[in-house]
Order: sequence, then structure tokens, then C-alpha cells
Amino acid sequence: MEKINIFSKYEEFDKYWSPHSIAELNGQQVIIAKVKGDFVWHSHKDEDELFHVIKGKLKMQYRDKSVEVLPGEIIIVPKGVEHCPSAEEETWILLFEPISTKHTGSIVTEITKNMYPKI
Amino acid sequence: MEKINIFSKYEEFDKYWSPHSIAELNGQQVIIAKVKGDFVWHSHKDEDELFHVIKGKLKMQYRDKSVEVLPGEIIIVPKGVEHCPSAEEETWILLFEPISTKHTGSIVTEITKNMYPKI
Repeated sequence: MEKINIFSKYEEFDKYWSPHSIAELNGQQVIIAKVKGDFVWHSHKDEDELFHVIKGKLKMQYRDKSVEVLPGEIIIVPKGVEHCPSAEEETWILLFEPISTKHTGSIVTEITKNMYPKI
Repeated sequence: MEKINIFSKYEEFDKYWSPHSIAELNGQQVIIAKVKGDFVWHSHKDEDELFHVIKGKLKMQYRDKSVEVLPGEIIIVPKGVEHCPSAEEETWILLFEPISTKHTGSIVTEITKNMYPKI
């Protein structure tokens, strides 16, 4: 019931591709992350994933095209669709997705986390 | 899979307290609305409701207090909690909630809509 300042939450961590949960509701979670460089190619079998760009520029790579997403823009990756988020410069993203969603989908890599820190 | 520009979507309508759906995912919907003045007191029995302020200032009134929410801030109203959103000046809000959520909760008034236009 208290408000959450999104920008302040980004100040609490620096690591790239490290999702932090800032809120939960209706079985969904609001995630923020700082990203730079390429993530890994992956898909989510059962979950659609919403990306909202807060700062910077996100390049959402699909197998057959890429879409550049700017602040004030959102993009939804439907379940089952392979994607690889990427950013040339540091970019701040906010995601909305089911609590069950794993950020690397069915791919497990060194950067895979099963629980996100709550901030 | 295409991006959505949130600001452009607000340009497609003028009416206050008239929610428009801009995206759906995982049984949830992304709603935008322009608001000014007081809404109605209501609660949602089964759904939490997320408000994200894009422009202006939202005053979220609860029965025992009010919280001012500014651009870049979000507030979640837990299910069952009576609330009455209000704004002195035109304010743009983005909501994230289950598709089943009715904007006036269990209260039915002249402004109640059962379906939101998709834009």
C-alpha cells in the first residue's frame, strides 16, 4: 500500500543481468534489471514476458529480426518464442511476469538464478 | 512481439476514467487511463491492482490515509482494500491487473465498463 520509487530501486545494485524483485501481485512479479551486452538465447515454455524500458535502449533479438525498444516503450515476448535481449550501453528494464518465470528460461548457465533478491 | 509506445497510446483518447487495454499476457492486462478528479470508493475482492504513474500526480486515498504517487513511482492496492484514486490535474496512469478485474470493483456506477477498448 506504500508507493515504490522505481529509480531509487535501481540505485541499490550495479550488476548487469541480475534481476531484482520489487513487487508481487496476483502471482506475478515486477522485476528490475540493469543490462549491458548480450544475454543468452532462451525461451519460456509457459510464460509471456513483458519488458518495459526505463532508461537506455534495449535490442530485443528474435531469430528472424530485432526490435529496438526505447524508454516509454514496452515489448511482450510471447511464450515459446526464442529471444536474446541485448544492449550496447547500460539499459534499465522493468519486467512483468509470473513468479514462476526463470530469466534464462529452460537454459541453465552460470548467470542463472532461481531466486531473485527482493528490494 | 512488436514494441508498444505508451505515450502514443495516450494520444488515442481523451476521456477521463476510461480504461483502455494496450496489452495482455499471462491472464493479465496492461491498462492505461487518463484521470482527473475523484473516482469512486471501491475494492477488488480477489485482485491486487498495480498503479504506475506516467505523468502528473495520483492521490491514492485509503480510508485511513492517502499516498501521493508521482511519475516513476508505483503503488499496489492489495485485494480487499477500499481505495479511491484521485488527481487534481490530468494524470496518466498505467495499471497492471488480471483480465477479470473490474475497474469499479463490486460497485457499479454510471462510469462502470465491463469491457475496455483495446488500442
